[in-house]
Amino acid sequence: MKTRERIVHVSLELFNREGEPNVTSVDIANELDISPGNLYYHFKGKEELVGELFARFYEQFNVILRAPVQNPLRLEDNWFYLVVVFEHIHAYRFLYRNVSLLLQRYEHIRRPFRRLLHMKQDAARAICVQLREAGIMDIDDERIALLARSIALTITYWLNFDNLMGDRPGDDEGIIDDGVLQVLSLVAPHVGALQREFMQTALAIHHRGTTPAPRRR
Amino acid sequence: MKTRERIVHVSLELFNREGEPNVTSVDIANELDISPGNLYYHFKGKEELVGELFARFYEQFNVILRAPVQNPLRLEDNWFYLVVVFEHIHAYRFLYRNVSLLLQRYEHIRRPFRRLLHMKQDAARAICVQLREAGIMDIDDERIALLARSIALTITYWLNFDNLMGDRPGDDEGIIDDGVLQVLSLVAPHVGALQREFMQTALAIHHRGTTPAPRRR
Repeated sequence: MKTRERIVHVSLELFNREGEPNVTSVDIANELDISPGNLYYHFKGKEELVGELFARFYEQFNVILRAPVQNPLRLEDNWFYLVVVFEHIHAYRFLYRNVSLLLQRYEHIRRPFRRLLHMKQDAARAICVQLREAGIMDIDDERIALLARSIALTITYWLNFDNLMGDRPGDDEGIIDDGVLQVLSLVAPHVGALQREFMQTALAIHHRGTTPAPRRR
Repeated sequence: MKTRERIVHVSLELFNREGEPNVTSVDIANELDISPGNLYYHFKGKEELVGELFARFYEQFNVILRAPVQNPLRLEDNWFYLVVVFEHIHAYRFLYRNVSLLLQRYEHIRRPFRRLLHMKQDAARAICVQLREAGIMDIDDERIALLARSIALTITYWLNFDNLMGDRPGDDEGIIDDGVLQVLSLVAPHVGALQREFMQTALAIHHRGTTPAPRRR
């Protein structure tokens, strides 16, 4: 792996593990066993590094959100779509951990970050509209807007909230499946008579487990 | 007002306005027009100040959460209960703004903060159980647990999420009423046939508006 790529990977790992505010450029150079001068040759300080990581996060998230759910009428397909979303956020979780401070300090990512949130909300709304058109959801536009906002909020803060609650015994094990279940539990009561079946299927997938402890990066 | 009280009030105001990581002891002394030595006489640094503010926040929140909703079967009573909860969080919003970093730096408030989150979740669960016993909600224990978690998550992160989204034109105007509506929209689909009436009443209160821009502190 080229030095530039190694720097990016190790920074992501350190930021996720220690929290971005607690990691300095010197820490990153030390971890890579390179000189600060060499690091500086590739990235002019933490701001550029955070910018590079965010650019990658943004680009991949964009691809994920634009890819439609295979078949939105199949619960399993929605489940796996949400797993992909949560895994992506988990891989770059340092961005979310203290997001207000991050956006204050790195102003240039504020607008694209905001755009991503709106894209999340829009993607949730689009799926709800499809489910309504298929006669599965019985819900008006105003309530779809509220539901889409709840879904975006839950996706954004699930990892932080779960962490704060501190109820998980092992190292993030099951955190993604639990997040997916949490999101689907917001949708379930809107599918009327199908609700019981919907939640039973969701709980069955959840019980089976689709994700072990997410890969540590 | 005694100096100690003035320090507490001004710190809260500065932390809320600028964000706790961006405010130093010297900033606080300057704002009060006292010497750093005088500030130090009352509080040995920011850690003690944050501790004092958190202690007040905790104590008042405890009182709020233990006071039962007057009549949980009346939507208005739940509405005003939630307004009180959100106003309290808004008054101490710096605690929530970058909560992961805050709890990392001020370890002694980590456990009580976590306890508060669990109390929020338990309060939500208790209200749902009452509504089920009164025959208003049709929901099993597993789904009550998921719903109570969604309510606690929404209450915890609403102000941050709304802020990130950046859609509010004026200075926090309506942010609390919108948060209350968001929480009630989680409950609404579980009240079965009453759902339409429930949301209509909620939207009517929301439209009337119960809170102007929250008092700035």
